Amino acid sequence: MEVIGVVAISLDGCITRHDSEGVSFTSDADKRYYRQALTTFDCSIFGSTTFEVGMEDILPALASDRLRVVWTRQPEKYRQYAWKGKLEFKAGELAEILEELRVRGKQRCAILGGTRVYTECVREGLMQALWVTLEPLGFGSGKRLFEGEVDFHFRLQSVEHLSDNTLLLKYHIPS
Amino acid sequence: MEVIGVVAISLDGCITRHDSEGVSFTSDADKRYYRQALTTFDCSIFGSTTFEVGMEDILPALASDRLRVVWTRQPEKYRQYAWKGKLEFKAGELAEILEELRVRGKQRCAILGGTRVYTECVREGLMQALWVTLEPLGFGSGKRLFEGEVDFHFRLQSVEHLSDNTLLLKYHIPS
Repeated sequence: MEVIGVVAISLDGCITRHDSEGVSFTSDADKRYYRQALTTFDCSIFGSTTFEVGMEDILPALASDRLRVVWTRQPEKYRQYAWKGKLEFKAGELAEILEELRVRGKQRCAILGGTRVYTECVREGLMQALWVTLEPLGFGSGKRLFEGEVDFHFRLQSVEHLSDNTLLLKYHIPS
Repeated sequence: MEVIGVVAISLDGCITRHDSEGVSFTSDADKRYYRQALTTFDCSIFGSTTFEVGMEDILPALASDRLRVVWTRQPEKYRQYAWKGKLEFKAGELAEILEELRVRGKQRCAILGGTRVYTECVREGLMQALWVTLEPLGFGSGKRLFEGEVDFHFRLQSVEHLSDNTLLLKYHIPS
């Protein structure tokens, strides 16, 4: 199963604008690309903060051909939203969650954040690529793409313009 | 006088690797580009930390046709290194320092960091462009490009490959 991180980031490395959760800072060009890109995945994983911020958009858009997995220490907290095969809440190791998705026949998983999920996936060698939308913005403060003292090395695969000002950078993550 | 910020940054927005001051993390391709790029400026400004980290390289390379200004609250602390026209230490407002350089006939000033210098120059509208070397690295922790809660918007002017993995992104800063 292919596992790919998808993220939008400011030029100064913030995945949120100041303390505002979510990605309301992204350009229209990124939003269009993001929606289209997600249709090419049959599953995705994201953290509970990402779920809570995005649930108004996520819940009406659940599709049986695309499983969304929320990684949380408290799956029972979200029992009312769980829908087998569409929206599942799981605790435990990301490696085990990904293995289960593979066994269930999934082929392509998008890793959608936040910081802890991206960092764990790279640190544990679970992700083969990282697709970065680079917005021409500076926030000074906000959540970072990675946390802790890490030393990740990527290989640039492609550079695309999503618009005049917004770039899509695709990186390979060496195993 | 043209004022241009020059910076190297990790994919996750760090201008230092963890707590290590300086830019030892940059690629050979960036180091070559940086040396060459600086020859196109007749002056530069950077902070005292940048000076202290780089002084072993800076002091033997002083040139009469390129003035380096160290922005510091304590110019007197560095009196032994001062050399009129080559290496000067100045306190006060960046706007005033830049104006003095303009009056002295300088045509092109490089802003070389760190965080406080970059942030002040953008916030005060003193810089017209930002040249960002984007290294394919993730550090998780390190100094950021900007500080405080800011909202800077840039315009992408060009994308160049310094090597297979390292990009040079040139942004215009709207006034």
